[in-house]
Amino acid sequence: MNERERPLILITNDDGVFAKGINTLVEIALSFGDVVVFAPDAVRSGMSNAITAHSPVVYSKLSSEEGLTVYSCTGTPTDCVKLSCHALFKNRKPDLLLSGINHGSNASINVIYSGTMGAALEGCANQIPSIGFSLCDHSWDADFSISKPYIESVIGWVLENPLPEGICLNVNIPKGEVKGMRVCRQALGHWDEEFESRQDKNGSTAYWLTGKFVNREPDAEDTDDWALSNGYVSIVPTSVDLSDKEYVNMIKDRESKLIVF
Amino acid sequence: MNERERPLILITNDDGVFAKGINTLVEIALSFGDVVVFAPDAVRSGMSNAITAHSPVVYSKLSSEEGLTVYSCTGTPTDCVKLSCHALFKNRKPDLLLSGINHGSNASINVIYSGTMGAALEGCANQIPSIGFSLCDHSWDADFSISKPYIESVIGWVLENPLPEGICLNVNIPKGEVKGMRVCRQALGHWDEEFESRQDKNGSTAYWLTGKFVNREPDAEDTDDWALSNGYVSIVPTSVDLSDKEYVNMIKDRESKLIVF
Repeated sequence: MNERERPLILITNDDGVFAKGINTLVEIALSFGDVVVFAPDAVRSGMSNAITAHSPVVYSKLSSEEGLTVYSCTGTPTDCVKLSCHALFKNRKPDLLLSGINHGSNASINVIYSGTMGAALEGCANQIPSIGFSLCDHSWDADFSISKPYIESVIGWVLENPLPEGICLNVNIPKGEVKGMRVCRQALGHWDEEFESRQDKNGSTAYWLTGKFVNREPDAEDTDDWALSNGYVSIVPTSVDLSDKEYVNMIKDRESKLIVF
Repeated sequence: MNERERPLILITNDDGVFAKGINTLVEIALSFGDVVVFAPDAVRSGMSNAITAHSPVVYSKLSSEEGLTVYSCTGTPTDCVKLSCHALFKNRKPDLLLSGINHGSNASINVIYSGTMGAALEGCANQIPSIGFSLCDHSWDADFSISKPYIESVIGWVLENPLPEGICLNVNIPKGEVKGMRVCRQALGHWDEEFESRQDKNGSTAYWLTGKFVNREPDAEDTDDWALSNGYVSIVPTSVDLSDKEYVNMIKDRESKLIVF
């Protein structure tokens, strides 16, 4: 970044360009730099890192004013990052990518399904410092005002302390009173009882995803789910490198009749 | 698993239930146990860990014979794992989940976009030993026969050596002659030049995803991309825990004015 220039901040999400959460994030980001919003035209939650591989994607400019331009796109959150970098940022890469504020938690196993975090992972895979923000409140008119000082603090910190290559931040904010912020690891968990069934009008059974989250280590105080359950903002450094290096070395070290190295 | 029973093997993919790759995998798996195929009804590649959150999913039985039942499903690969576990496996969890054989590489950064690996990650998040297989050949009639002994070897190994909780295997097989197998870490990489544009009939510009893969560490011999480029099958232990624990501890250890722990 040229020191005389304001940071260039790309903002996207998975709840769509008109969601309350992304508009709160834009308000916050404008105090740090120039903002380009490039977000899905409608809800794309649960899209993970999905890409649109077999059909084209279209985008259009919704508005433009000093320091803020807004685009909507027919693709997924990951498509939004890829296409905006291709179409708008060939000469100057964004200094920061912000994704969210998601309506609902992306802590623990939710990170792997999250379109919000898909966009953040895509950003850091492309060497853009990236942060995903989520508020643990699914409602459409959730009160995002409480999030503001914490989001400002994290953005300011990342602008001053570059993240390592391939690592973004997954920041979740609890609903209600906040006691502080904690850097955490991702809690081990999964979703249980995941469908409700209904007979559809043709007599087929249609299954609707539902269920409840199970934290498999509820007492682990160093995890994001513990932090959120105890009133803290959770900050999880999240990597695009999914390989478990400890286990790679473990397998390499031990003898095996079946796998030849 | 009851010792007198044959292993129960769930098979899915992201190329759809009629793809050549999944049918090769079924043939191989039948020598290890009873097989249930529960796969998308059509191509769902690039779907990552996407879930169908806002519409219902339907499945139907395509065929049933001794030791092999085949279902197709309108959902994503991750939906297939979730719905089959809910609808078919409440009383007996599969002993193994196999995903693939994908038509095309899922090495390096491709793992985050892959529906094949999305299904494998979903399996291991739900405590089912899971392996994703991919052949580095996109063609629809790719020759999967060369993969067979390597896939057999990995399946046999996993059935005898339980994977740690939350870790699955991402197995990629090079096209052409194979020199051996290597346990690797994921190579650092990204996709460049990612769209071709066309004017559509309404005058809008439509963008089609394309581009080329860039390995940012081509000389690193411990990576999957190096192994594949040099004729080896790559086996990457791949984790649903995306948090980078080393960096968590690094931030915790150093002073910071902005983040309060």
